[in-house]
Amino acid sequence: MEKRIYADRIEELRSMMRSRGWDAVIITGSDPHGSEYPAERWKQVQWLTSFTGEAGDVVITLDHAGLWTDTRYFIQALRQLEGTGVELHKMRVPEQVPIPQWLASAFEENKEVYFALDGLCTDNAFAAEVKARQIAAGRACHMVSIPNLLDPLWEDRPQVPQTPVFEVDPGESRIERLGRVRDWLSENRVDYLLLSALDDIAWTLCVRASDIEYNPLVISFLLVGQDSADWFVLKEPVEDPQTEETFRALREDGVQLRYYEEIEIALSDACGSVAAGELNYHLSSLLGPGRLCPLPSPVQKWKAVKNAVEISGMRRSHFADGLAMEKFLYWLEKSLDGDRAVSEWDAAVKLGQLRAECPEYQGDSFETISAYGPGAALPHYITPNHEAPLLEQRGLYLCDSGGQYWGAFGGTTDLTRTVPLGPCTPLEMEDYTLVLKGHIQLAMAVFPCGTPGCRLDALAREPLWKAQRNFGHGTGHGVGWFLGVHEGPQDIRQNLNPEGLVPGMIVSDEPGIYREGLFGVRHENLLLCVEASENEFGSWCRFEPLTLCHFDTSAIVPGLLTPEEHDWLNSYNARVFSLLAPQLPKAISDWLRAKTSAI
Amino acid sequence: MEKRIYADRIEELRSMMRSRGWDAVIITGSDPHGSEYPAERWKQVQWLTSFTGEAGDVVITLDHAGLWTDTRYFIQALRQLEGTGVELHKMRVPEQVPIPQWLASAFEENKEVYFALDGLCTDNAFAAEVKARQIAAGRACHMVSIPNLLDPLWEDRPQVPQTPVFEVDPGESRIERLGRVRDWLSENRVDYLLLSALDDIAWTLCVRASDIEYNPLVISFLLVGQDSADWFVLKEPVEDPQTEETFRALREDGVQLRYYEEIEIALSDACGSVAAGELNYHLSSLLGPGRLCPLPSPVQKWKAVKNAVEISGMRRSHFADGLAMEKFLYWLEKSLDGDRAVSEWDAAVKLGQLRAECPEYQGDSFETISAYGPGAALPHYITPNHEAPLLEQRGLYLCDSGGQYWGAFGGTTDLTRTVPLGPCTPLEMEDYTLVLKGHIQLAMAVFPCGTPGCRLDALAREPLWKAQRNFGHGTGHGVGWFLGVHEGPQDIRQNLNPEGLVPGMIVSDEPGIYREGLFGVRHENLLLCVEASENEFGSWCRFEPLTLCHFDTSAIVPGLLTPEEHDWLNSYNARVFSLLAPQLPKAISDWLRAKTSAI
Repeated sequence: MEKRIYADRIEELRSMMRSRGWDAVIITGSDPHGSEYPAERWKQVQWLTSFTGEAGDVVITLDHAGLWTDTRYFIQALRQLEGTGVELHKMRVPEQVPIPQWLASAFEENKEVYFALDGLCTDNAFAAEVKARQIAAGRACHMVSIPNLLDPLWEDRPQVPQTPVFEVDPGESRIERLGRVRDWLSENRVDYLLLSALDDIAWTLCVRASDIEYNPLVISFLLVGQDSADWFVLKEPVEDPQTEETFRALREDGVQLRYYEEIEIALSDACGSVAAGELNYHLSSLLGPGRLCPLPSPVQKWKAVKNAVEISGMRRSHFADGLAMEKFLYWLEKSLDGDRAVSEWDAAVKLGQLRAECPEYQGDSFETISAYGPGAALPHYITPNHEAPLLEQRGLYLCDSGGQYWGAFGGTTDLTRTVPLGPCTPLEMEDYTLVLKGHIQLAMAVFPCGTPGCRLDALAREPLWKAQRNFGHGTGHGVGWFLGVHEGPQDIRQNLNPEGLVPGMIVSDEPGIYREGLFGVRHENLLLCVEASENEFGSWCRFEPLTLCHFDTSAIVPGLLTPEEHDWLNSYNARVFSLLAPQLPKAISDWLRAKTSAI
Repeated sequence: MEKRIYADRIEELRSMMRSRGWDAVIITGSDPHGSEYPAERWKQVQWLTSFTGEAGDVVITLDHAGLWTDTRYFIQALRQLEGTGVELHKMRVPEQVPIPQWLASAFEENKEVYFALDGLCTDNAFAAEVKARQIAAGRACHMVSIPNLLDPLWEDRPQVPQTPVFEVDPGESRIERLGRVRDWLSENRVDYLLLSALDDIAWTLCVRASDIEYNPLVISFLLVGQDSADWFVLKEPVEDPQTEETFRALREDGVQLRYYEEIEIALSDACGSVAAGELNYHLSSLLGPGRLCPLPSPVQKWKAVKNAVEISGMRRSHFADGLAMEKFLYWLEKSLDGDRAVSEWDAAVKLGQLRAECPEYQGDSFETISAYGPGAALPHYITPNHEAPLLEQRGLYLCDSGGQYWGAFGGTTDLTRTVPLGPCTPLEMEDYTLVLKGHIQLAMAVFPCGTPGCRLDALAREPLWKAQRNFGHGTGHGVGWFLGVHEGPQDIRQNLNPEGLVPGMIVSDEPGIYREGLFGVRHENLLLCVEASENEFGSWCRFEPLTLCHFDTSAIVPGLLTPEEHDWLNSYNARVFSLLAPQLPKAISDWLRAKTSAI
């Protein structure tokens, strides 16, 4: 079995450990930029263990190999790790033992330990905690930070990608955005801002590329001072005309283009204080506590508040996305009615094709979750590309997908529809309705501007809680403008994130229920936070749905919706119909009329 | 005018400042225990400025005298400070300048400043911030901590009170509670736990007294080690037999009784680490960072979770309290019907008399707020004891009160009823109904055990938010068992307090609306958190109202309540009637039957 190669790789790593005197090697699933989707080069956990989940860290000692991942990936990890010798350590469970704690009890007392890690791909706070817990356990601990640690073992390791770079016009120039950074530097008496999060860089410089899957980003670092803006982006000679054009425009705006690897030298040389928000362990160590300011980067927050151009692009993207979705749902129903075999994979492929009919479609904003029945009970199900389960004309089909759009307009979409394919069980219908109640309650919320999302989270859950049901993931995340489908700093979830919701922010509204081995329900729209009014009690916000795709009413349990929820649903569906119908073929618009008729 | 004496006192203080070379004196409204209601001895702010609000701190420099207090007390402060020369500094407003920030800009650059404060009555973190901001402003700063700083100026300053001490039986002995502390010390590898919060001490030692207004507490410190429990409580020779008996029992349980002042010497001498939770500046300094562990005290959390004996006492206290309240509301209605002049003050007095009919009543748990019309628009209105406004047969009367009970049963109560005294305006009725919706929504909540109260706060606010109305105070606070009416660590409010709600905790549910110059509405019950069930989604909690007093249905706007809210209200009122009626005189029970008939 092929799994032997992973066991072999781990043994090779152990040979290296023995020759260098390392007690443990820590490999994280991250890249130097803390990206959600690392480029192939940084899929180190996958190369070492075969595990392909989005969240997973590995610790190798001389007698143990462990993968730490959370509830979303337990089933996948157990399947993929079989035969590799790697053990699963479960996170986000009450009995969890995170890596720092596990390492604290993994060695004998008083031992002097050496831990090797790829400091570029390791979070600074995490490395600090590993060390602190060793010291608390009475051991001297040496952290050996080696960028590209696995290079000697990994033949043909992919290079850092360099795809064509192009400009976007968000209605605010990069001169203005760099100006915001410089004003912030003055106000905070800091000499430099170092941006390492790729979407923060793309936002600031108004550039995009395709270096990262699902995200139109450029792998790079950006160091901004009062009189300088150094972009560490070059990896190989640029031959693409569009990129050359973009780089020329950047230079005209005072941005100096430098080689990606030069960031280390530049930081070693930089005189003065540097704010960097979240930064990897290696670059943090280069700066040292003397130069590294503990201020969060302001860009994340600026980026979260969309301006009029960005909002208009989001609306048009959602319009295009809605057309594709309604065509897809029509196709799905008619295909099943016509007894055509449609697998989860076929459906995902079809949806991609329909999105691609829009010239602005650039690709998906994340991997489509196309899940029928039991598969949908896994909130992060991965649709298999062969032998995928076939859809049947009963029960619930869940489809969570989104697109990246650029051209005449731009934006990023993300929606989930749970589709009754035929008769549903009473439990399926009850769950379908309760989750929809939660979705609607949050969508209808009115709240003081600046209220943190964690204070609204219960609105989406209370209809489920009343029935003593719940879901284990957050209710909402921020979404970028032709950027990452997940962005901060705001969210709507259990964690007590103090970041307030203000007009211009976008969040998803996606409560769910998951019934192991049976089915799953999730209803997701993106919501735009808008100002409702101002009165003696303060400023008020409400949400406006950006997503345009009807909610199927056939699985609703009559009587479970309040009159208010009823009205919201009918008027939302009516709006979807009235906006999309004129652009749909007659057969589909007739079908949609019936689907959206008031209940 | 008498206000001259305050100006004179401030001038005397300034003479002291000049002779000692102090640039500022900071006087806080607190006592050495961080109590909500300090004893007379520690009403230093009142002695110096005449201000009687519960929250107020004073800074005196050679050319400025300022009082810092929050929104609740602005009107009162402006009235009381007139003629004293003390200026009001407003807190909890967007433009607030707290004391540390104000002091940072109050002196010239590079000056070496000396700030005097009564370190016993000053919070440690606050003193640290004052100092840090001076240093940030480029000044050398000396904090001169002088316990009882005002003694030389304050003739006949009251002594530390010593009232009779008695034992309570909460179903868990002090031996067991000291055992919990000692287990905690072992687990956390700490040598001592120092308790300075008076309710934590009363809980641990199962004792009560009347040293503090509205709170059955003993002014003291408690220092617990593995083999020792030193109670610093004696102030003068004990002559009371009950106190002697209690002290004997304590000694038998291994508690050493020591003089109150000896805490300073004891801490100077104590070998080993000391955990103390929140501790005043003076005692913190005595311990120093070397011995003071930054662990929170565990007692607050233990105390918050009531056991079966405590819950049963709370139920019986609320039963007694409900009888007094219904008699009061009956008396109120009949008095006004009979054209008797009833002032806010008369009503408060009558309510106290009716509570006192219960032999277990020990006094009020806080100062009754009896407010008609505009007075009720101040959430912390103080009912004047002469020339109080008269109640009329129209609009809303708000009464927020509670009792302390001890004897055959014990407990602490706190409830607010807003009573329509006759015809109400549409706005009064709408506000009355919306606040009641909020109250009911929180009371009906079902939630995962351990959910922080801040995540439930929006349930009580959303009905108001939907109408773009709000209130500026928290929705709920913890309540003690025959202890303080306000206790932590849990609460239900805007602040992101991570403390989870678990079975056995008690919280108030008291949303409101305040219309300046017009009226105020607040509906408050105490709720007991109980376990609802356990299923595949986890453990579930819900609330059970402890308070027994009907909500008047005459001011409800028909149609604003959902059917669910309707049912809750009818069944709550029916339960109040069925439990209380058998113990009420026939005339009152007949009246209550009508008041509680279903709507």
